[in-house]
Amino acid sequence: MRVIFNEELKQVADDLDRMAQDVRKAINGAGEALLKQDVEAAQTVIDGDIEIDALESSIIDQCVRLLAKQNPVATDLRVVVSTLRLASTFERMGDLARHVAEGARRTYPASPLPEEAQPVFAEMLEFLSDTADQLIAMLSDRDAKTAEHIILNDDKLDELHHKTFELALSDGITRQQTVDIVLLGRFLERLGDHAVSAARRVVYIVSGFDPSKKPARDEEGAIE
Amino acid sequence: MRVIFNEELKQVADDLDRMAQDVRKAINGAGEALLKQDVEAAQTVIDGDIEIDALESSIIDQCVRLLAKQNPVATDLRVVVSTLRLASTFERMGDLARHVAEGARRTYPASPLPEEAQPVFAEMLEFLSDTADQLIAMLSDRDAKTAEHIILNDDKLDELHHKTFELALSDGITRQQTVDIVLLGRFLERLGDHAVSAARRVVYIVSGFDPSKKPARDEEGAIE
Repeated sequence: MRVIFNEELKQVADDLDRMAQDVRKAINGAGEALLKQDVEAAQTVIDGDIEIDALESSIIDQCVRLLAKQNPVATDLRVVVSTLRLASTFERMGDLARHVAEGARRTYPASPLPEEAQPVFAEMLEFLSDTADQLIAMLSDRDAKTAEHIILNDDKLDELHHKTFELALSDGITRQQTVDIVLLGRFLERLGDHAVSAARRVVYIVSGFDPSKKPARDEEGAIE
Repeated sequence: MRVIFNEELKQVADDLDRMAQDVRKAINGAGEALLKQDVEAAQTVIDGDIEIDALESSIIDQCVRLLAKQNPVATDLRVVVSTLRLASTFERMGDLARHVAEGARRTYPASPLPEEAQPVFAEMLEFLSDTADQLIAMLSDRDAKTAEHIILNDDKLDELHHKTFELALSDGITRQQTVDIVLLGRFLERLGDHAVSAARRVVYIVSGFDPSKKPARDEEGAIE
């Protein structure tokens, strides 16, 4: 029974890795779409979100089957429960990357962002691209150190997000640009929040301790 | 063993009901804060979010314990898995209500909204207050009919959300008001999306079929 369980768990872990890779692709594609007015990249992200959603459904089904048939305990149980929750987090990250891509596509061939806003958004996207790399590394070797790095590092993204509000309020841009800066900034900031959630779930697998009980979540989501 | 299981399951179901009631309180309090500049209501919502977060943690712990000790199958297993996911949904709804309250508190004693935006936001909040009532009813009797009503009804909130974008782009309001309309509108729309997720999870408990596999989620989250 144990052998079957480990095989089935490996299958679901592979699917979760694939989901994380799809999310990284979506984040990088959303960046290309937004910063380089690459409408094909935008379309690829939008179309690819269906696969991410399908992976989530499949992972949930597999986890429920595992719980029913194998009655995992201790670390194995934490892996299954965290996998369920990680799949939801990644699904949501796919949605957010899709929203960024949709925002870029809507104004094509122009950018939704005024020129002066582009450097801050470029920094946010670079940060998220690095974070996506870390998420994949963290998952593949259940590395709590990388997870902690993701959790602690999130302040940088929040600082950049604050700057987007200054940009949104600046003179000389259209009202539509203000709207787009606010929404796109929010989507990117939420992508970072979800990466932190994912990292916390990996810490929980490794340690049995859920660090989300300590620091408050989404503190920076409030209106500034 | 079955008796213990049912007792423990009842305990976690009671906690989930309490969470839903706290979320309703938070939504109604956020409405008072935003539409009546009631800063005490705002503070109550902000402070109350800690209890919602604590309930989520407690529910997750209880569910993991149930899974380890009792090895539930079939409907019982679906209840436990859905309870895990419902707790996360409610936790997020608490965050979003808190963000609305924080937005209202920030500009106190003034409203963050221009007068012409208030009727649309009042409609959104009334809609969400009704939805919160339905969520509680749906949970207490696992009523798939009410759940389906919540799922189908969400279009109304999306229509109201579209109107907030028109308001955000209108002349004669400050740029800060544009920012606030966009963010507050987004928070309320996301509250509705989460209510739909919650409803889908109850359909899954009752039917074993997850309706989230059909319609795409958060389609209206994109930039309009």
